[in-house]
Amino acid sequence: MYGPDVTFLGVPRCDLDDPSSYADADVVVVGAPFDGGTSHRPGTRFGPKAIRTTDYLGQHGSRPSLALRTDGLRDLRVLDAGDVEMFSGDAERSLTTLRGEVAKVVRAGAIPLILGGDHSIAFPDAGGVADVLGHGRVSMIHFDAHADTGDIEFGSLWGHGQPMRRLIESGALRGDRFLQIGLRGYWPGSDVLKWMAEQRMRSYEMSEIVARGLSSCLTEAFEIATDDCDGVFLSVDIDVCDPGHAPGTGTPEPGGLSARELLDSVRRICLELPVVGIDVVEVSPPYDHADITAALANRVVLEALSAIAHRRTGEAWDPLRPLLDGR
Amino acid sequence: MYGPDVTFLGVPRCDLDDPSSYADADVVVVGAPFDGGTSHRPGTRFGPKAIRTTDYLGQHGSRPSLALRTDGLRDLRVLDAGDVEMFSGDAERSLTTLRGEVAKVVRAGAIPLILGGDHSIAFPDAGGVADVLGHGRVSMIHFDAHADTGDIEFGSLWGHGQPMRRLIESGALRGDRFLQIGLRGYWPGSDVLKWMAEQRMRSYEMSEIVARGLSSCLTEAFEIATDDCDGVFLSVDIDVCDPGHAPGTGTPEPGGLSARELLDSVRRICLELPVVGIDVVEVSPPYDHADITAALANRVVLEALSAIAHRRTGEAWDPLRPLLDGR
Amino acid sequence: MYGPDVTFLGVPRCDLDDPSSYADADVVVVGAPFDGGTSHRPGTRFGPKAIRTTDYLGQHGSRPSLALRTDGLRDLRVLDAGDVEMFSGDAERSLTTLRGEVAKVVRAGAIPLILGGDHSIAFPDAGGVADVLGHGRVSMIHFDAHADTGDIEFGSLWGHGQPMRRLIESGALRGDRFLQIGLRGYWPGSDVLKWMAEQRMRSYEMSEIVARGLSSCLTEAFEIATDDCDGVFLSVDIDVCDPGHAPGTGTPEPGGLSARELLDSVRRICLELPVVGIDVVEVSPPYDHADITAALANRVVLEALSAIAHRRTGEAWDPLRPLLDGR
Amino acid sequence: MYGPDVTFLGVPRCDLDDPSSYADADVVVVGAPFDGGTSHRPGTRFGPKAIRTTDYLGQHGSRPSLALRTDGLRDLRVLDAGDVEMFSGDAERSLTTLRGEVAKVVRAGAIPLILGGDHSIAFPDAGGVADVLGHGRVSMIHFDAHADTGDIEFGSLWGHGQPMRRLIESGALRGDRFLQIGLRGYWPGSDVLKWMAEQRMRSYEMSEIVARGLSSCLTEAFEIATDDCDGVFLSVDIDVCDPGHAPGTGTPEPGGLSARELLDSVRRICLELPVVGIDVVEVSPPYDHADITAALANRVVLEALSAIAHRRTGEAWDPLRPLLDGR
Amino acid sequence: MYGPDVTFLGVPRCDLDDPSSYADADVVVVGAPFDGGTSHRPGTRFGPKAIRTTDYLGQHGSRPSLALRTDGLRDLRVLDAGDVEMFSGDAERSLTTLRGEVAKVVRAGAIPLILGGDHSIAFPDAGGVADVLGHGRVSMIHFDAHADTGDIEFGSLWGHGQPMRRLIESGALRGDRFLQIGLRGYWPGSDVLKWMAEQRMRSYEMSEIVARGLSSCLTEAFEIATDDCDGVFLSVDIDVCDPGHAPGTGTPEPGGLSARELLDSVRRICLELPVVGIDVVEVSPPYDHADITAALANRVVLEALSAIAHRRTGEAWDPLRPLLDGR
Amino acid sequence: MYGPDVTFLGVPRCDLDDPSSYADADVVVVGAPFDGGTSHRPGTRFGPKAIRTTDYLGQHGSRPSLALRTDGLRDLRVLDAGDVEMFSGDAERSLTTLRGEVAKVVRAGAIPLILGGDHSIAFPDAGGVADVLGHGRVSMIHFDAHADTGDIEFGSLWGHGQPMRRLIESGALRGDRFLQIGLRGYWPGSDVLKWMAEQRMRSYEMSEIVARGLSSCLTEAFEIATDDCDGVFLSVDIDVCDPGHAPGTGTPEPGGLSARELLDSVRRICLELPVVGIDVVEVSPPYDHADITAALANRVVLEALSAIAHRRTGEAWDPLRPLLDGR
Repeated sequence: MYGPDVTFLGVPRCDLDDPSSYADADVVVVGAPFDGGTSHRPGTRFGPKAIRTTDYLGQHGSRPSLALRTDGLRDLRVLDAGDVEMFSGDAERSLTTLRGEVAKVVRAGAIPLILGGDHSIAFPDAGGVADVLGHGRVSMIHFDAHADTGDIEFGSLWGHGQPMRRLIESGALRGDRFLQIGLRGYWPGSDVLKWMAEQRMRSYEMSEIVARGLSSCLTEAFEIATDDCDGVFLSVDIDVCDPGHAPGTGTPEPGGLSARELLDSVRRICLELPVVGIDVVEVSPPYDHADITAALANRVVLEALSAIAHRRTGEAWDPLRPLLDGR
Repeated sequence: MYGPDVTFLGVPRCDLDDPSSYADADVVVVGAPFDGGTSHRPGTRFGPKAIRTTDYLGQHGSRPSLALRTDGLRDLRVLDAGDVEMFSGDAERSLTTLRGEVAKVVRAGAIPLILGGDHSIAFPDAGGVADVLGHGRVSMIHFDAHADTGDIEFGSLWGHGQPMRRLIESGALRGDRFLQIGLRGYWPGSDVLKWMAEQRMRSYEMSEIVARGLSSCLTEAFEIATDDCDGVFLSVDIDVCDPGHAPGTGTPEPGGLSARELLDSVRRICLELPVVGIDVVEVSPPYDHADITAALANRVVLEALSAIAHRRTGEAWDPLRPLLDGR
Repeated sequence: MYGPDVTFLGVPRCDLDDPSSYADADVVVVGAPFDGGTSHRPGTRFGPKAIRTTDYLGQHGSRPSLALRTDGLRDLRVLDAGDVEMFSGDAERSLTTLRGEVAKVVRAGAIPLILGGDHSIAFPDAGGVADVLGHGRVSMIHFDAHADTGDIEFGSLWGHGQPMRRLIESGALRGDRFLQIGLRGYWPGSDVLKWMAEQRMRSYEMSEIVARGLSSCLTEAFEIATDDCDGVFLSVDIDVCDPGHAPGTGTPEPGGLSARELLDSVRRICLELPVVGIDVVEVSPPYDHADITAALANRVVLEALSAIAHRRTGEAWDPLRPLLDGR
Repeated sequence: MYGPDVTFLGVPRCDLDDPSSYADADVVVVGAPFDGGTSHRPGTRFGPKAIRTTDYLGQHGSRPSLALRTDGLRDLRVLDAGDVEMFSGDAERSLTTLRGEVAKVVRAGAIPLILGGDHSIAFPDAGGVADVLGHGRVSMIHFDAHADTGDIEFGSLWGHGQPMRRLIESGALRGDRFLQIGLRGYWPGSDVLKWMAEQRMRSYEMSEIVARGLSSCLTEAFEIATDDCDGVFLSVDIDVCDPGHAPGTGTPEPGGLSARELLDSVRRICLELPVVGIDVVEVSPPYDHADITAALANRVVLEALSAIAHRRTGEAWDPLRPLLDGR
Repeated sequence: MYGPDVTFLGVPRCDLDDPSSYADADVVVVGAPFDGGTSHRPGTRFGPKAIRTTDYLGQHGSRPSLALRTDGLRDLRVLDAGDVEMFSGDAERSLTTLRGEVAKVVRAGAIPLILGGDHSIAFPDAGGVADVLGHGRVSMIHFDAHADTGDIEFGSLWGHGQPMRRLIESGALRGDRFLQIGLRGYWPGSDVLKWMAEQRMRSYEMSEIVARGLSSCLTEAFEIATDDCDGVFLSVDIDVCDPGHAPGTGTPEPGGLSARELLDSVRRICLELPVVGIDVVEVSPPYDHADITAALANRVVLEALSAIAHRRTGEAWDPLRPLLDGR
Repeated sequence: MYGPDVTFLGVPRCDLDDPSSYADADVVVVGAPFDGGTSHRPGTRFGPKAIRTTDYLGQHGSRPSLALRTDGLRDLRVLDAGDVEMFSGDAERSLTTLRGEVAKVVRAGAIPLILGGDHSIAFPDAGGVADVLGHGRVSMIHFDAHADTGDIEFGSLWGHGQPMRRLIESGALRGDRFLQIGLRGYWPGSDVLKWMAEQRMRSYEMSEIVARGLSSCLTEAFEIATDDCDGVFLSVDIDVCDPGHAPGTGTPEPGGLSARELLDSVRRICLELPVVGIDVVEVSPPYDHADITAALANRVVLEALSAIAHRRTGEAWDPLRPLLDGR
């Protein structure tokens, strides 16, 4: 929608209006260049372009992972549907349009991988998946500094601080299969927290993560996420990372995960869980520097794809295996 | 709306819900922190804050102009009503709200001075003035690189490329009292130009300005603007200046006016014409550097206020008069 | 002193010349916009403004901590006295003025929370506290990459590399109750280290912190700090963090703490120790990017306030408690 | 070569290895992502991508000029051949490759429009044109702060300070049909100036341009350029503009043209002279801010194309004609 | 004082404590890395280093001017005395030290060329010259957006808004031989203007410059400056230029001169007047981008030196002379 | 080669053409301002200058390490030979020149410490050492995100992705004494990995490092490195660190080491192993912000020198020893 028409690292293009163009896809990338829902620094409308292209390697649709020995862009059939037209000045219409596009991808049996855009899009992203796979049948693993469970803000239901509430309220997702990782800071207040507790959400604030260890929290979350659910939606707000690792975002909250921790977590999720949809959101290029936030988001996508490809091999992955063991 | 609650260089605050608070105002500053209508780089939501505060002098509500010997903030009664709440994700609602607030100011007999925000707000800004002073009774002098006369864009009527069309279509302003200065570049196309010609708009493209001289064009424009109209609305899109002078904007078009030319033009307009409303728009701080664009916009506001104050003295102004002539 | 007159996240204002205005305060924020003492990159004069306002949430004087379940700005009575006028070109006069203002706060029974400014201000900050509570009765916990115990530099006693020496030499603070955390790099030399050892200071260089663990070092430091002292002054130089987490500072030294480690340390100090004064210094906005350093400093302040509020409840804090446990 | 594969504002692609793909082209854009010849700040390897895409309008291969009433991308058949592979670590090989590609375009009867890259490429650019049209048959109009007539530098013949000497020495271009506009500063020294005078080059230093007026200098230059030559090569080094208008370049020299002056000059050249080749060079995105230098270079290209399209209509152009005269 | 010890573009070093080292100098460069007097954005302490080194050419002590055909660094004997130690936290002491150093240079018969630093240093710069050449015998040509004639600010006599008042009050310079060029904006107020008028200063505000032409104003100023005076001090505050041309400064005021106008003015002054001292001040690298402000200041210095060298040849300079006329 | 001629933090200069000038050196710093080999973002040509000078302390050739109690610049005889002239447009010639210069240093019995420049220089750096000490007698410890073992790229053997292959292919270094630490991401592909395995290289990918711990990996690597080798070359590509800690580099790969981990690793290597050569590469100042990457590289150099100095004392180093233990 902004700038030249490019695909994620050069993967083939498809057209969501032409089902044959993505009939055999494993993953379809969808750009959601929308920042009309942000409560502070805008700019995520340029996120899809930045996440698609920020890489120092040639952009020819191949990325062999050193860690996983899979090529997420080759071992899977990954297509890019381009950007959905989303006028930032009309959140409601834009989100509705997106939801329909996401559902098309799911109906074709592919995993939608949506590049935000601000986090408002989680509502149509996970909602569109649930529309096809069944309301209440998809659990959520949500990386974020913020709970995004606000009610009405600036007079609207549709901002980036509210999608998780809308998903649960609408019945698309179950509150008790909603896992949040990395929360911290000074929002929301007690009313909203009370509502969250009533929904039986499970939110790991950074203090708990530091005290227990991230790995232990993830293991517990995985158990909840896979209990009586058919698939997992993974929503990655880049601000779950510390601003030192992800400065280019709208509402940076100090004290977050390192980039390494996020990448390792995404890898584990996609290796161990039946992921049915992904979004990567809140990359704001105007506030980035040296493109490090966009590069991180690009690697989050590749980490997910590489791990999904590995999971489909059915083999176990051993982090202790040396890189050059000759196999 | 974003960040701390401050007024333009420290002028007193008023409350638009309390007419007594601005009953005797000459000018009321209104913040319009809205960037939901921009077609490219966002960030103008932070424009009102930046324009209000970007100045190296103490912010105590006084600014004696060296050039004009008036103090726009003291000789006039200037109040600041703060920001109108404008959710960028809902352009239509936000613009409607703003229009009502602008009209309140006009009804009180004051000049509304709106700080944008993207140029979408020109529709409620000039429209709100015309609602009170009479449709067709206010002419427009519009500094901009762009005509902003598009029809439907991104499926919406309300973006920053369309307000001037909406103003004329709605009858709020007359096309043949619509003066545009500084247009250039590659938009709009012939259909829109044809519509503009049909409205009998008068648009000075930069080639004409260079060939004839800016001063000559302004003089001609002033004659049209004051023919059978009761007042003039001045709309300053900061991108009328060259990107070297105003980098912090959403849609920079090379080859524009210098900062000096813009300041001198604004001065002449406010000295010579019956200005009834002003907006200064399209300052995008995330793309600014060293705050030079915000500083320029701040000075555009001060230039206007100083000149309005001078006009009210009824005295002529002589640019040849030395600064230290002892009077 | 620079820019508009704002308070820390919108807390009420008080006036240090009017004791009644802060008679019942728990904490009084004081701005110290001084960078005349810095030995390298200046800019900390804009630190108070940046620390007060860098936050993406509305600035209305409330911040409920997710981690601690207290609202530091509501559960405590926090007031902001604005900036002390400190001309950077006259360090001695400026520091003297500040010392008097700090003492006023302490005399009123409140905790002074000074926002720097360069670290020169630690001398009047901790000195002003000691002037009221008694010389030798206040211990110091000092987070910093640098010892700040130099003698005469650039021909002056008053630079930002010397305040800790001045505090001890003057008897305001005891050397053997002076705890330094995070030192590293290549300054000072052996002469100064010898002087420090003679004062029986306890300085934790990063190698020791890495080898022993930060938590263990803190526990040891807490014991010293509370041995025969009536209160603890907490001085946080933001450069204790790694430049990746705090680039916006004057003398960045690679290899420091993470933002998470600093926040957790500040929390523990304010939960476990009788803090009687705080300063947060060396935030230099011109060298910041995406405002991440200012945001971190803002969160250091909030972490301290939230924890002080929690300490006053008398309840224990358990980091393992889940966020949504329903209490 | 760097990043995604895109064409100039979305014009169709062609393949220089497939002559049928550009058989009917009027203009072929060629990217020269090479900065191995620069003597100071590098980064122009990213120039082709930046010049192709830096525009806030949709990139669909159309740009109707307000000033000229032509659409350079539609009225002409403009194709983009993508980037030539140019390893910056091997100047000689890279320049040789480029020369062959440029000649292919000329042989097909099209105008090559090369996007640099550093100015080293002027040698293969103008040389490749002369190889086809005849050595000595093409004159040069060269906008630059620097003469680029150095001999051996850093032990090499091929840097960006030397291409103009190589062109003349090799006989590809005549020295007495070599027009330079905008020179200034402190290079080269008298030896090189003597060589230039011996070649009978005509170089307009900024003092002469200020004293005589740019327009007068251009008129004189045009006469020389069209005397006994078959075509004109236009080489635009963006550093001919003042650093305030073009900061993103490798060797900025204060005191240059404004962006407006450059655009107007390029327009006149392409309206009045038989242009047979163009390059636009020395845009260095890492040193740009808010993309203003890349935007200017993009507009230089469009100005040239719009004017070439106008020249082909055979009609005169009148800058005094109002934009909305209804024709 | 900050960073490595370098000289202006590689000219030889001298030592002000060793008169023999600069006995035969024509010009002695002195660094004044002081920003303790600035009222807003600091950073000029890094000005001397930036002005000395910001150039893309090799730094070997030679710069042949294309415009003037002189080599200011070779035709004159230019030495660099390095930085004076100036602690920014003690303005009074620092300025006193500098005054003594400047006087040493003048006593040796050389022109002091001081690189600031903030404009506070004009007091010791011009004062030190007058101390040797005689109070009242040196006139001042002062390029600036600001009059710098304030009285007491921030409780001090020594800030960067006051040096011109101090010079006149102390009798070092005559008010009626004080020429100011480029003033604009909103400072100072009428009291100060009244004082200035009483001193019979002559200040050219930008409105007068635009109305009369810069050249005409300069000619008039030159007549005043040379009436019953023995020499002229040239003080160039880089903020006389528009922020688009000089963003890297502390108190940018929109609407100033272009870089070209400043360079041409400096050239004329040094060609036509008996310059006895120069300072170039207010370059603040932290706010610069792409180093364009530092580059401009470097060229101001070179322009002055080239013109002084030309003046000493006794020949006239003709701007109409073509660069390659073969002489 | 670029900018003023300075030495590493002010150490004395030597001249590689004059062996007597470095006859008794322990370490000779050599600048390699070359970025002609980079495959993406250039700028490392300014690395040597940035690494030499980026420090907030005075640059007088002394740096006492707080952690190690040695002064690497005083306890060792460290000289700086300045920059080797390396034209980035001719990689082959430039690298050959550098190799000869490095060998000169080794022949004099000193450790060459080369400041890059891009990683292409590892071939002449380690190759030049091996030329003197014997091919196959020097092992390599290589910190990097990338293996740098590519074959032909962009048609050349000499880019920054290939030096390690060239070193092994040429026999200069043994593949089975080649230790790589920090690899990650999506390059190279299986062919190159197969070649690496055949050479019996040992490469620690980040997954293995996270799973086993960095310390354990280093210990294992040290055993291999010292098995039947006479010395160790340490090559530090700054991109081994996470982009949050080292943004100023050409090919940033998220998920790397922290600055603290790199510094501690370098310390251990230089304390425990017989280091015979060092290079620090890939610092690209145009992409740095607040100079944090250059500062880190400067500290990597100092950490190495401090540890080498400590190793020569023959004493053990205890990280648990408190800083102020009085010894």
